[in-house]
Amino acid sequence: MKGMLIVLSAPSGAGKTTVCQALLERTDRVKRAITTTTRPPRPGETDGVDYFFLSEEEFREKLDRGRFLEHARIYDHYYGSGRDYVESQVEAGYDVVLVIDVQGARSLREMGVEAVYVYLLPPSLSELRRRLEGRKTDSPEVIEKRLSRARDEISRYTDYDYCVINDDLAAAVDDLEAILRAERSRAEKFSGKVEEIIAS
Amino acid sequence: MKGMLIVLSAPSGAGKTTVCQALLERTDRVKRAITTTTRPPRPGETDGVDYFFLSEEEFREKLDRGRFLEHARIYDHYYGSGRDYVESQVEAGYDVVLVIDVQGARSLREMGVEAVYVYLLPPSLSELRRRLEGRKTDSPEVIEKRLSRARDEISRYTDYDYCVINDDLAAAVDDLEAILRAERSRAEKFSGKVEEIIAS
Repeated sequence: MKGMLIVLSAPSGAGKTTVCQALLERTDRVKRAITTTTRPPRPGETDGVDYFFLSEEEFREKLDRGRFLEHARIYDHYYGSGRDYVESQVEAGYDVVLVIDVQGARSLREMGVEAVYVYLLPPSLSELRRRLEGRKTDSPEVIEKRLSRARDEISRYTDYDYCVINDDLAAAVDDLEAILRAERSRAEKFSGKVEEIIAS
Repeated sequence: MKGMLIVLSAPSGAGKTTVCQALLERTDRVKRAITTTTRPPRPGETDGVDYFFLSEEEFREKLDRGRFLEHARIYDHYYGSGRDYVESQVEAGYDVVLVIDVQGARSLREMGVEAVYVYLLPPSLSELRRRLEGRKTDSPEVIEKRLSRARDEISRYTDYDYCVINDDLAAAVDDLEAILRAERSRAEKFSGKVEEIIAS
């Protein structure tokens, strides 16, 4: 049976990267979509594992051929989610998780990209504030801005198929696993299996 | 959070009663819809546990008030799935499983009864034959008729939201549990929770 694409999104600080990592540690049938970038590899980063590294020319050529699900330019570099990797893994029966910000998830949905859209939510805005402050990377002004944006983003939860509250990490991964298992049980995926049963 | 109604159906012999029973043994948040009948209680049967026992007059009165999701007359007696029990349990947060034959499930769907429709499938028609023969209750002619009907019924799998293959009992119940957990995660159920998060 073919796999599927899962778009996992969340407001900044809700823990989408951690939840995805924990899911990958639990199961062999799920892979994380590898981002393609034009920025140079940092020490220790491996092509095809951490990122796919391309020259700007190669990236633009791929972009022109429509081989990215979505892409963005951040400062001087391109970042994109290549279709080739996702399609080959899905074809081989793996589920592929694409971890992406809210704006990226919205673009995918608007373009009609077929996927299971999952929205990870913080248990509360006060907890989100605590997590953002705990990172010690953002100024108070930036944190206020992130919280204000998170409030707007959370209210768009109906853009997604499923919501998962990231209160307890293990419970959130249980929810995600259940969603994947249930999606594999959707009736429309059983045409091949039903033919086998009837033929037997 | 409110619970939901799960309509669990299957061709005769696919094991819907056994799977439902195994699900109920695993979790406290799921209840089985109790059938209402006008047939007299058999020794050991308790009203409100095995069945709701009503007189024919009481049954017809309830029927006239539209208080059955579905009903059937089998030989001399009425059988029906009362709305009252389902609605009160769902309101109290329980998921209620209604185990019903294919024709009954179709009626519910056609009437627009809101539920999660799950179709239990035998792993193969030869395995279904083995199970029907193992019961030793049906003549060879009846078994052939059941198998022929099962073939037609299985091909209507797209009438359901989900399919579960009953090959291994534990795996089938895992699938059912995942479906229930995922359905509880559907975005449209998060309006209350999202308000709480934003207000916090």
